[in-house]
Amino acid sequence: MAFIRVDFEEACERVTRSFHALGVPEDGARRMAEILATNSLEGVLSHGLHFFPLIRNGLKSGSIAPEATPERAAAHGAWEQWDGRHGPGPLAALAMTERAIDLASQHGVGLVGLRHTNHWTRPGYYGHHAARRGFGLICWANTPAVMPAWGSRARRLGNNPIVFALPSGDRPLVHDMALSQFSMGRLRTTQLEGAALPVPGGYDEAGPLTTDPEAIDRSGRSLPIGYWKGSGLALLLDLFAASLAGGHTTLDRTESPEVDDVSQVFIAVDFAGRADPSAMQAMAARVLDDLRATFVPAEDAPQAEFRFPGQGVAERRAENEAAGVPVDERVWQKIVQVSDAAV
Amino acid sequence: MAFIRVDFEEACERVTRSFHALGVPEDGARRMAEILATNSLEGVLSHGLHFFPLIRNGLKSGSIAPEATPERAAAHGAWEQWDGRHGPGPLAALAMTERAIDLASQHGVGLVGLRHTNHWTRPGYYGHHAARRGFGLICWANTPAVMPAWGSRARRLGNNPIVFALPSGDRPLVHDMALSQFSMGRLRTTQLEGAALPVPGGYDEAGPLTTDPEAIDRSGRSLPIGYWKGSGLALLLDLFAASLAGGHTTLDRTESPEVDDVSQVFIAVDFAGRADPSAMQAMAARVLDDLRATFVPAEDAPQAEFRFPGQGVAERRAENEAAGVPVDERVWQKIVQVSDAAV
Repeated sequence: MAFIRVDFEEACERVTRSFHALGVPEDGARRMAEILATNSLEGVLSHGLHFFPLIRNGLKSGSIAPEATPERAAAHGAWEQWDGRHGPGPLAALAMTERAIDLASQHGVGLVGLRHTNHWTRPGYYGHHAARRGFGLICWANTPAVMPAWGSRARRLGNNPIVFALPSGDRPLVHDMALSQFSMGRLRTTQLEGAALPVPGGYDEAGPLTTDPEAIDRSGRSLPIGYWKGSGLALLLDLFAASLAGGHTTLDRTESPEVDDVSQVFIAVDFAGRADPSAMQAMAARVLDDLRATFVPAEDAPQAEFRFPGQGVAERRAENEAAGVPVDERVWQKIVQVSDAAV
Repeated sequence: MAFIRVDFEEACERVTRSFHALGVPEDGARRMAEILATNSLEGVLSHGLHFFPLIRNGLKSGSIAPEATPERAAAHGAWEQWDGRHGPGPLAALAMTERAIDLASQHGVGLVGLRHTNHWTRPGYYGHHAARRGFGLICWANTPAVMPAWGSRARRLGNNPIVFALPSGDRPLVHDMALSQFSMGRLRTTQLEGAALPVPGGYDEAGPLTTDPEAIDRSGRSLPIGYWKGSGLALLLDLFAASLAGGHTTLDRTESPEVDDVSQVFIAVDFAGRADPSAMQAMAARVLDDLRATFVPAEDAPQAEFRFPGQGVAERRAENEAAGVPVDERVWQKIVQVSDAAV
């Protein structure tokens, strides 16, 4: 892949125009374009503008309903269930983050289960969004099956992502992880480079753990974090998401692969309104300062100093705001071509 | 360690009497005895009757206040903060599980942050307790620092446990894990046996990953699940717990090691009152049946079939109800000696 730099505003304008031409109302198209461009701006390229072709395909094939917005299906006080009605996933996820924030404003904590939705691109986006508004956010989703359960060869578990986002002034702490040790993208990139993974990422066909992405590709056995621990957690996140949303499980997706349907959960906490944000920020700063001050690099340390979850986002954002949004040349050519045709 | 089998009722009676003699009111002493004996009965020996000497030492030294019960410090609707006032940790955790359940009954979801408390023994106990009552429970705690942050040699992160418990008829799904790949107990036991860990559990002094528990003991670098992923999650669970409870962080404990003070979080969801428990149970059963049916054991599989989180608990409970509660002989001798003296 060859990366080029593009202008944030131009990227938003072109993506907005393209989605709008496919039936997404203009304000929604603009918001979704901003989510994609922001994800690229903050360095999460795989979940940024690179999602443009995928969402476009979904809109064209009809698996994503361009005008559908989430509808409330059940209200249980501070816990609500919403039906995404197969509308654009990033817009539904942002709306549900906002709804969880509203519920938290009313009740201290708010929980939204969202069913019949599709890929939200980068989950950390919603964590940063909530944290910037002063709210804590825990959110997770189920996904199609890509990992085997512990000890098995059959891929039946989702690579379910989970986010913990804590407000902390202008530098929120956002831990955004999926449950496989390495993403499919990372495995593929490392394979293309002919390199080895820094730690074992799965099994080879004969059984042993390996750092060879090609062997993992052959065996189909990528590794959940913590082996049996990540396997159990992936299962519980799936069943919790489906139960809280009244929605589909990873198994439903496996059995009906043509239906693009996942369940998501959003839990917001009103720190802004009911805690002392400056005391919280001072506490977090004290802990991070200690982690920095006590950092003694290990021989195999990938870095010379402590880095907090979310730190890279702020750094890459600053860098890319100056230099332009990084995007794969072919993806950008597609965006240009499609948006030019959408005039 | 030599294990013997003891009678559940006798164990409860002796532990109750011993704690009561140290000032714990009789009903609290009885409840705490039941928690310890149940943890052993369900096969989690390290967090069962083996905690008797630790809690007794805390009561004797004054670090655990025998009569103190949690007091509500702040009420934010469905989110409350409670002060454990350094009372017995297992009793405070059980009371806060109940309080989160009450809040969930009122609001659909309930969140309790508990500060100034101490070790709750086995976190899964509270998950099973809530799930048996038809409530989902997500709970976690911070702990003293025992793991290095990713890439560092300095042990500054807690081995924070987290539980996801989902009701499912009489076989709740309970995922109860701490964030280190292996517990200190498991490392020690494996070292005593002169055996190797089944997968890498930390680093040796020169840097590389190792399955040798003695090398990990020497380096002091046990491994968080998922390397950088578990490291970030441990930090966020710590800061979230301290923020939700208005309580202490792992760093506070490191700086004042003489103060036994942790923060805990309990999030309950009212599935019993606001969902369709039989539909949820059918969904979980369908997913588990599929995982069993599709299980193809890998060469290095530790087991021949799929096992769900919480399955071992039910099996060991049935076994130990018939055969007696397993307990280390020396721990039992201590319990007999102390309870005999407490008549």
